[in-house]
Amino acid sequence: MILTVTLNAALDATYFIEGDLNPGETHRVCAIAERAGGKGVNVARVLHQLGEDVIATGLVGGRTGDHVQSLLDAEGVSAAFVRIAGESRRTTVVVAASSATGFWEPGPAVTGAEWADFRAGFERLLARADTVVLSGSLPPGIPVEAYADLIRLARAAEVPTLLDADGDALRFGIAAGPAVVVPNAAELAELSSQPVDGIASAERAGRSALTMGGQAVVATLGVRGVVLIEPGRCLRAWPLHPVAGNPTGAGDACVAGLARTVGRPWAERLSEAVALGAAAAAVPTAGAVDLPTYQQQRLHVALEEC
Amino acid sequence: MILTVTLNAALDATYFIEGDLNPGETHRVCAIAERAGGKGVNVARVLHQLGEDVIATGLVGGRTGDHVQSLLDAEGVSAAFVRIAGESRRTTVVVAASSATGFWEPGPAVTGAEWADFRAGFERLLARADTVVLSGSLPPGIPVEAYADLIRLARAAEVPTLLDADGDALRFGIAAGPAVVVPNAAELAELSSQPVDGIASAERAGRSALTMGGQAVVATLGVRGVVLIEPGRCLRAWPLHPVAGNPTGAGDACVAGLARTVGRPWAERLSEAVALGAAAAAVPTAGAVDLPTYQQQRLHVALEEC
Repeated sequence: MILTVTLNAALDATYFIEGDLNPGETHRVCAIAERAGGKGVNVARVLHQLGEDVIATGLVGGRTGDHVQSLLDAEGVSAAFVRIAGESRRTTVVVAASSATGFWEPGPAVTGAEWADFRAGFERLLARADTVVLSGSLPPGIPVEAYADLIRLARAAEVPTLLDADGDALRFGIAAGPAVVVPNAAELAELSSQPVDGIASAERAGRSALTMGGQAVVATLGVRGVVLIEPGRCLRAWPLHPVAGNPTGAGDACVAGLARTVGRPWAERLSEAVALGAAAAAVPTAGAVDLPTYQQQRLHVALEEC
Repeated sequence: MILTVTLNAALDATYFIEGDLNPGETHRVCAIAERAGGKGVNVARVLHQLGEDVIATGLVGGRTGDHVQSLLDAEGVSAAFVRIAGESRRTTVVVAASSATGFWEPGPAVTGAEWADFRAGFERLLARADTVVLSGSLPPGIPVEAYADLIRLARAAEVPTLLDADGDALRFGIAAGPAVVVPNAAELAELSSQPVDGIASAERAGRSALTMGGQAVVATLGVRGVVLIEPGRCLRAWPLHPVAGNPTGAGDACVAGLARTVGRPWAERLSEAVALGAAAAAVPTAGAVDLPTYQQQRLHVALEEC
């Protein structure tokens, strides 16, 4: 079973309006789409679409949390979220004629007791997990070492971890030695304090990140594909026929590809990540993949040692 | 007891963001304010602030409806809402450095059985009501004659009604002979098919509206005050010291002033409406009044037969 962790789960709402978004005016919302969100939830949804045995865990609270839970139930994604007293956040994207504008609520405050509850539940779930995916931001009140803590618990249970985070959560997390960290270019640049603007600079920054504790780095570089950096090796994979589309959530699909291929050769793992990233770009909403696009893309991935 | 009716109750959310709203970008929400909304709910809140015996009724549904109900409970406003299967709407206002931008969700679909439930509950509440206030839009599924229907029930029970609506809901409602209709300039212009751009044109349009069935018209004209038109009389009232501020919800406060003075001389009723409208403008969020401003303003209202 693959266990995905989403400590700052969200209700993702999309508002469709007619015409343009005009600041200062009032707009009637013509249609609304809602789905369970947060990066780890997106990873779980993609894995579920692919028929994998997956459980989404994390923290949810309040009526918004109830709604997140019921949306996951409706999709058939197995979930084991811990309830908190605070209210889960909403994200709203307003889709207008010529723009998509986002409003991100802050996450709920989490108490020390709630974090301890989660941690205990995580240890129980670890006993059944083959792989753990840790994704996204930490809500207020969660210690900055949270991912490091969970990675150490997983390592003690001999369960490999994939970490997709940014800022301090990533910096502290990588020190605990996750099996793979999956930063995008901006996250990797911030982590390594080096510019990342291409393959060579991604390799240099990835090498720097390896010295911080990660066992392998897979940098996601959009249509330029992904770059694996591990001791003594650098391998690049990219789509021969990139998909123009929605880049939001493509990184989560890459992580799903890496999570379902733990133990397989890197060439296969990167191809899977690239194909799923492209298949996510083919879907207008974040956190899902187009399965026919995935089947086609996995046959057309280029691989090159760098 | 004053009974307010809000068939399209809402959860009003205000998002505060730093800097400007830039279409196409993602914005972090720094702070969120939420309150129960809908025009009749705003009227009930003002009446509650003034110590009046008031009950808010209407339709609420889903988790958003639960939230509306719990916010009213927290404020101590008595509520007797009928539950529907649909989800109550949210309104979101994004307050940025130099603009306030609104997003209005559509109302929930209401079934015939739910409307019949509401109507039966309304008849029971009428037995205890001294005055009925009917405010705001009709959600999908509610017959366009809904306000006319409720006004007829109230007239049969000898309870006076105040109607604040627009478009077809107002046009059909006024035909049933409400005691007072309270349109703003735009609503009165649309109802009468005449331009309304000052006191004289408001009187002409109000006379036209009286022929449609209303017993009295009180047109609300912002800082120019209010104009009463009834058979044989036209009386204007306006604030001697207008309050610059938030005009949203000032009309609801005027309606509250008229509702709590049923049976009193028009000079007193209009003064109350004007003072409460000004006291609403002094509060940054809609649907509440500043009590010290109200006490001061009621001493400084000008009255003139027109």
